[in-house]
Amino acid sequence: MKLTVAQKIIKNHLVTGELIKGTEIGLRIDQTLTQDSTGTMAYLQFEAMDVDRVKTKRSVAYIDHNMLQAGPENADDHLYIQTVAKKHGIYFSKPGNGICHQVHLERFGVPGQTLVGSDSHTPTGGGIGMLAIGAGGLDVAVAMAGGEYYITMPSIVKVELKGKLKPGVSAKDIILEVLRRCTVKGGVNKIFEYCGEGIKYLTVPDRATITNMGAELGATTSIFPSDEVTHEFLKAQGREEDFTEIKADEDAVYDEEIIINLDELEALVACPHSPDNVVPVSEVKGRKVNQIAIGSCTNSSYMDMMKVAEILDGKTVSEHVSLVISPGSKQVLNMLAENGALAKLVSAGARILECGCGPCIGMGQAPSTDAVSLRTFNRNFKGRSGTVSADVYLVSPEVAAVSAITGYIEDPSEHITSFDIAMPQKFLINDNLVVNPDEPNNDIEVVRGPNIKPFPKGDSLGDKVNGKVLIKVEDNITTDHIMPSNAKLLPFRSNIPYLSDYCLAPCDPEFPKRAKELGGGIIVGGSNYGQGSSREHAALVPLYLGIKAVIAKSFARIHRQNLINNGIIPLVFENENDYDDIDVLDELVIENATDQIKTDKVVVKNINKNKEYNLVLDITDRQRNMLEAGGLLNMIKLSAK
Amino acid sequence: MKLTVAQKIIKNHLVTGELIKGTEIGLRIDQTLTQDSTGTMAYLQFEAMDVDRVKTKRSVAYIDHNMLQAGPENADDHLYIQTVAKKHGIYFSKPGNGICHQVHLERFGVPGQTLVGSDSHTPTGGGIGMLAIGAGGLDVAVAMAGGEYYITMPSIVKVELKGKLKPGVSAKDIILEVLRRCTVKGGVNKIFEYCGEGIKYLTVPDRATITNMGAELGATTSIFPSDEVTHEFLKAQGREEDFTEIKADEDAVYDEEIIINLDELEALVACPHSPDNVVPVSEVKGRKVNQIAIGSCTNSSYMDMMKVAEILDGKTVSEHVSLVISPGSKQVLNMLAENGALAKLVSAGARILECGCGPCIGMGQAPSTDAVSLRTFNRNFKGRSGTVSADVYLVSPEVAAVSAITGYIEDPSEHITSFDIAMPQKFLINDNLVVNPDEPNNDIEVVRGPNIKPFPKGDSLGDKVNGKVLIKVEDNITTDHIMPSNAKLLPFRSNIPYLSDYCLAPCDPEFPKRAKELGGGIIVGGSNYGQGSSREHAALVPLYLGIKAVIAKSFARIHRQNLINNGIIPLVFENENDYDDIDVLDELVIENATDQIKTDKVVVKNINKNKEYNLVLDITDRQRNMLEAGGLLNMIKLSAK
Repeated sequence: MKLTVAQKIIKNHLVTGELIKGTEIGLRIDQTLTQDSTGTMAYLQFEAMDVDRVKTKRSVAYIDHNMLQAGPENADDHLYIQTVAKKHGIYFSKPGNGICHQVHLERFGVPGQTLVGSDSHTPTGGGIGMLAIGAGGLDVAVAMAGGEYYITMPSIVKVELKGKLKPGVSAKDIILEVLRRCTVKGGVNKIFEYCGEGIKYLTVPDRATITNMGAELGATTSIFPSDEVTHEFLKAQGREEDFTEIKADEDAVYDEEIIINLDELEALVACPHSPDNVVPVSEVKGRKVNQIAIGSCTNSSYMDMMKVAEILDGKTVSEHVSLVISPGSKQVLNMLAENGALAKLVSAGARILECGCGPCIGMGQAPSTDAVSLRTFNRNFKGRSGTVSADVYLVSPEVAAVSAITGYIEDPSEHITSFDIAMPQKFLINDNLVVNPDEPNNDIEVVRGPNIKPFPKGDSLGDKVNGKVLIKVEDNITTDHIMPSNAKLLPFRSNIPYLSDYCLAPCDPEFPKRAKELGGGIIVGGSNYGQGSSREHAALVPLYLGIKAVIAKSFARIHRQNLINNGIIPLVFENENDYDDIDVLDELVIENATDQIKTDKVVVKNINKNKEYNLVLDITDRQRNMLEAGGLLNMIKLSAK
Repeated sequence: MKLTVAQKIIKNHLVTGELIKGTEIGLRIDQTLTQDSTGTMAYLQFEAMDVDRVKTKRSVAYIDHNMLQAGPENADDHLYIQTVAKKHGIYFSKPGNGICHQVHLERFGVPGQTLVGSDSHTPTGGGIGMLAIGAGGLDVAVAMAGGEYYITMPSIVKVELKGKLKPGVSAKDIILEVLRRCTVKGGVNKIFEYCGEGIKYLTVPDRATITNMGAELGATTSIFPSDEVTHEFLKAQGREEDFTEIKADEDAVYDEEIIINLDELEALVACPHSPDNVVPVSEVKGRKVNQIAIGSCTNSSYMDMMKVAEILDGKTVSEHVSLVISPGSKQVLNMLAENGALAKLVSAGARILECGCGPCIGMGQAPSTDAVSLRTFNRNFKGRSGTVSADVYLVSPEVAAVSAITGYIEDPSEHITSFDIAMPQKFLINDNLVVNPDEPNNDIEVVRGPNIKPFPKGDSLGDKVNGKVLIKVEDNITTDHIMPSNAKLLPFRSNIPYLSDYCLAPCDPEFPKRAKELGGGIIVGGSNYGQGSSREHAALVPLYLGIKAVIAKSFARIHRQNLINNGIIPLVFENENDYDDIDVLDELVIENATDQIKTDKVVVKNINKNKEYNLVLDITDRQRNMLEAGGLLNMIKLSAK
């Protein structure tokens, strides 16, 4: 069978399933990455698996999100991650070393390998021919423990790039063009695979810009072949040994095809408030700009910064513009500081921010009220900048830089003929902000600040599951009801005990207290229970409160998976009328639970009403095993023994 | 009469009073500066004076405090300050241009001139022989409008520096030694004037480190002579024409004298939690450090940064240390980026923050829980870092840098023999982040974000002052009662209408509503009314609510001044028993108010009780004029016409 690049990597890593699109496949994972806002939970989950040392080829913990450190919580998270990483054989990238995706590309990514990362822009690694997928923290924890990662086998979209980009048009415009055509919903269960003569003119950072922002398509991932360009990049990074050529077979079969003529592509811009609201820059040219932000995992590479420095050389940022620049990594910043480019940026009036995600994730640099902000980032959702009334436009570094000078949106094709910049033959290599994991060392003390609490562990299923009904809720309860996540609670994402006092409080403020007094029990819900955000905390916190089962008229898909992952049995009424029969504080019992959950019929007794209800448990065998083990974490622990 | 440097400048600027210590003197002010956290209110106050253009020789508005910009409020403040500055002839230093005191020293300060700034570290300017004093926003506004600045004529402390500093000992250690000897209370109503052969070895930035941190003595200000060192500095800044020699007369008489032998001085450290808790570094050597922060208005000059770069050159920051460096200005950062020093800092693993106050004012980089943080800053009060449990040590850049490498407090004398660094013959001069004020232009639109509200103006005193008693409070009411300033309310310091809903609410939540419904009135208080923080908002907000007079058993000094500044009459019961006679909602009247306030006896009628009370108004004639005009702002406006 002739295969595409993605299919080849999938085939090489297939643990379960087949290359049939739409079916479940399990993949062996070579590498993982985490960042700090999802990392603490991922490592708490990993710790709960009792695995001494990560089983991946390479796992890296980055600090790049919460670097403002307004209170001790952020620094405490950093310290927890640093010490837990050291204990378990995980590389630790200190704050200041850069954005996870940029650094991973430079120093860790390997063509042909699989990478899961607890960040939605993990597909950046597709720029060097990795199969790189964004995932939840638990998925990453499981991968670190040696477990496979399950996805639906995606269809493959061929994106053929013909010709060569004109001056002033860049990789960012290619992905903006794909977003314009396919929209933010267009990528679900698809992999976008780039090919064609045009790719040979695209550097690895160019390619990474494209695969990075493929996340905005909702795609599983995006990928480029690993070719001579990849080879040169790895060589310049001192990692030639990591290179493998991976190209699609000539007659590989794709499910869809997109052709982009680079010669005809213009500089584009994603207008407020969606990354697919794309028009040519010429259409919005002349609009007054208040803020310009250059950086983020999409556009913070050495080449991006060098282009900006060349454009700004000897110029001055417009009086009414605040220009902020966050280089993507210490490597980038160090090279700019050595070769004089940083001096040009500073001289022109740019504000140099730390190497990190910064304003892209709303960590600072909120624009003024009603401001127009031009950003080289990947998302422009309303309010994401920190200013609800701001209009954020997503553009290339070229558009950003030429507009910074005049203070109005400019079309770079009118200003740029060519750049006098080449990819370095040799990058500046100094990994002294990466702490290498020592040999396995259980003596290392993992430092847990007061906000970092142990992670709740499920118990393997007993023969009898019983408990009182602690709450009975209506239809369409969301995960925001189950575990609110407002500004007040967000800093406590590593603190399940604290969060537990707010669990289901919007439905019944007494629920947490009741659950604690009775030592756990059972939740009864209506239809579509657990809709909304995918947050794992809506299962983790009930687990902490001793919830053993949720009985509902129906479940939202992702929340049901999260319940199973945490060993909480999601049962559906065969007869919806039984819902009306149950009252809060009724004592329910599932006899012979271990046997019953092996089938799709479960009988539960209501002691108070002296009745029996027939319930449905329509899940896969893998999931039944998970429930028996008391959740995915326990299952992994068992299989690791 | 033989005079000291400070006395000479005072004499040259004396508008009222005489050089007799302890008496009130009024000074003509040449220059003002503001920063953004106090600036918005100062400019709102200035606007309320209806003066078209500042009457100072030079006024500069800096943005250096609130640069994280977590929400639109900060950027809105910046935009307001930028536009109001442009309209009224004020230089505007954009965010990114640096810390007010550092930039002012480099580009604006002039020996022999007077400077008031709405920041307590304004005395930094004493490093180039300015008489530079920290003041409230209204004082700065008045100075911008051409009014004089009133202080108590201070006593002069001679600080004689003998000999020369040893390697590894620096200017920071000199001011730490002064703090060790004099304590944080030792400087009240004093000017510390430096002299002796040792000063010729101190660069202007060294001197500025000393005068800057003189603020921690509680001193009025600190000052160095303007000599050849000053001359060279100004020449290197391209400002030779700003130089004037100012030296103390040989037989000048000082009120106190301190002698420091620099040869014997060791590297010092201010231990938690006070800047005067000073011991030799050798006493705390070896203590493990978690965070090191280099920068702030005390130690962020070119020379400071160059020394740090030389120490860190080729080294790596300790694995368990987070080192953050904030250069003091764009000039400093740009020079470091050009000469390779910045590359050395980055290479060693330093996190480079923006040119601004940053962690010194708790804007980011809060250490982890229980952390030890070494900082080159000026204050180490408990919790100021953002982490209540952290131990902050104040040190020189030398101590900070040598400790960063090992991760333990080190004595630089064991590591440093000499530096291969000289003061630049020519600084890099590029003021393109300073917006020069245009010619007076009333057409410029001042942009006020939704959080920036017009400032309340007092009315000139009518012949009859009357109103209902809106509240009657007990003894010892603080300004925290009158105008609470918790974390919830602090972002609204530019929004008097918003704040007004919380005025006196801790005493009576209905007070703001009642005051608004009745269109203002009178407050009756017990003894020591208005004690505590000096905040002006405790008078501004009552003014907004229409308060015409406060009648109390006695007043706290500063609050009484603030009431008078805002045209609110502070009256004291001659007979304290009359306090008991008055009830809330009684109608009080002062007939012939304009005549009555010219004397120290005022009679008020209680219409409801049909009684008269004798009240005392023991204030200066200047203050009586202020009340008649309806406050200091109006008085300035009248005198400006």
